[in-house]
Amino acid sequence: MARGRFITLEGGEGAGKTTLARALRDALQAHGLEVVLTREPGGTPNAEALRELLLEGETGRWSPVAETLLLFAAREDHVRRLIEPALARGAWVICDRFSDSTRAYQGAAGGLEAARITAIEQAALGAMAPDLTVIADLDPEDGMARTRARGEAVTRFEAHPPQFHARLRQAFLDIAAAEPKRCVVLDASQTPDALARAALDAIETRLGLP
Amino acid sequence: MARGRFITLEGGEGAGKTTLARALRDALQAHGLEVVLTREPGGTPNAEALRELLLEGETGRWSPVAETLLLFAAREDHVRRLIEPALARGAWVICDRFSDSTRAYQGAAGGLEAARITAIEQAALGAMAPDLTVIADLDPEDGMARTRARGEAVTRFEAHPPQFHARLRQAFLDIAAAEPKRCVVLDASQTPDALARAALDAIETRLGLP
Ligand SMILES: Nc1ncnc2c1ncn2[C@@H]1O[C@H](COP(=O)(O)OP(=O)(O)OP(=O)(O)O)[C@@H](O)[C@H]1O
Ligand SMILES: Nc1ncnc2c1ncn2[C@@H]1O[C@H](COP(=O)(O)OP(=O)(O)OP(=O)(O)O)[C@@H](O)[C@H]1O
Ligand SMILES: [Mg+2]
Ligand SMILES: [Mg+2]
Repeated sequence: MARGRFITLEGGEGAGKTTLARALRDALQAHGLEVVLTREPGGTPNAEALRELLLEGETGRWSPVAETLLLFAAREDHVRRLIEPALARGAWVICDRFSDSTRAYQGAAGGLEAARITAIEQAALGAMAPDLTVIADLDPEDGMARTRARGEAVTRFEAHPPQFHARLRQAFLDIAAAEPKRCVVLDASQTPDALARAALDAIETRLGLP
Repeated sequence: MARGRFITLEGGEGAGKTTLARALRDALQAHGLEVVLTREPGGTPNAEALRELLLEGETGRWSPVAETLLLFAAREDHVRRLIEPALARGAWVICDRFSDSTRAYQGAAGGLEAARITAIEQAALGAMAPDLTVIADLDPEDGMARTRARGEAVTRFEAHPPQFHARLRQAFLDIAAAEPKRCVVLDASQTPDALARAALDAIETRLGLP
């Protein structure tokens, strides 16, 4: 059995990552693939325990570097226990947020130097990286409107000023520009169906499909 | 007010670190110093929450690198919220275990490469380091006997084979040999009083006392 492929979905809040993740799972399953859909922070019991520590309590509970250390501890557990075994048995893994979210949130928007994040990533994961990263790019205003329309509780990650979200969006675009072979940026203002088709096209072009 | 001094106590289990920490607190207070006595993992509410995550559950719950990331997240919080402010106001800080315990437990005894620990330490703490580290050196058999005599519950850190504890002891000696200006190794088979006097002599020689 050939090793599976590791696809991550990234982008600002309400851009449509979770909706896209489900559509891609269905489409890849229709191609006869075993698909594992997971998300971060979380994905394993240990990582979910850390997710709770990160999300509960007031903003500023953890410094950006402490958050980054906790996120990569969770990520290492997630990769080692869930993602790597799935890839090894030939499954394709779709992960709703991954390391690029740490670069964008704790790094570009949170002020932590990129080199410190890279050092922590390298220590935690070595060379392990996604085969493809789909960035759902959307005006933060539209993303916030979508989130509000969903009637969701405002989490601490949503309790940030507009400039924070503008920096986030730019951070994802900068990551894509720096790593064009790994990343594809898609216009997330399209309908869910059109966005999923565009993502599937990118997957077919970049990774091939059975 | 001159900046205080940061003293860490290290060594194997039951070597007498906690007993020595209290004796040093009393002796330094008798010199008119404000002393903050703290311990790791822990020392602040966030760090204590991580301590619980690290200590509960079965051995092998976390990989050595995940443990290291969690320990340095806790340590960053401890340094930023408690240790640095105390040093800045002129207090002397005595900390029962610190980064050298991570090097010894997760590194030398746990198998994680020293370079990965150093990279995580550098990302978490930058150049922040103890002014003096006192290593309580004891045959692990004697340390275990002391711990057992105390009638303590066997924690997961105590549930390791003899070779693990031998590697720990050697790891602390290797750290002291590599950083002789920061570290002093003391014979912990002495009586508590004699050990405290030897530690106070080292503090006076290395750091000076008012
Ligand atoms: N392409 C789209 N066009 C319009 N609305 C969408 C689209 N995709 C998702 N939505 C709606 O927008 C809201 C947010 O979508 P979704 O939860 O998928 O975003 P997300 O990027 O995962 O958000 P979060 O960052 O909060 O996890 C949902 O109510 C969803 O139904
Ligand atoms: N110098 C000493 N000589 C004999 N017994 C000692 C000495 N120091 C401490 N003890 C006793 O040994 C036991 C362990 O001491 P202590 O708790 O200070 O060690 P520790 O290094 O902090 O252990 P742990 O690694 O479990 O935290 C206690 O019962 C203590 O009273
Ligand atoms: Mg989502
Ligand atoms: Mg102790």
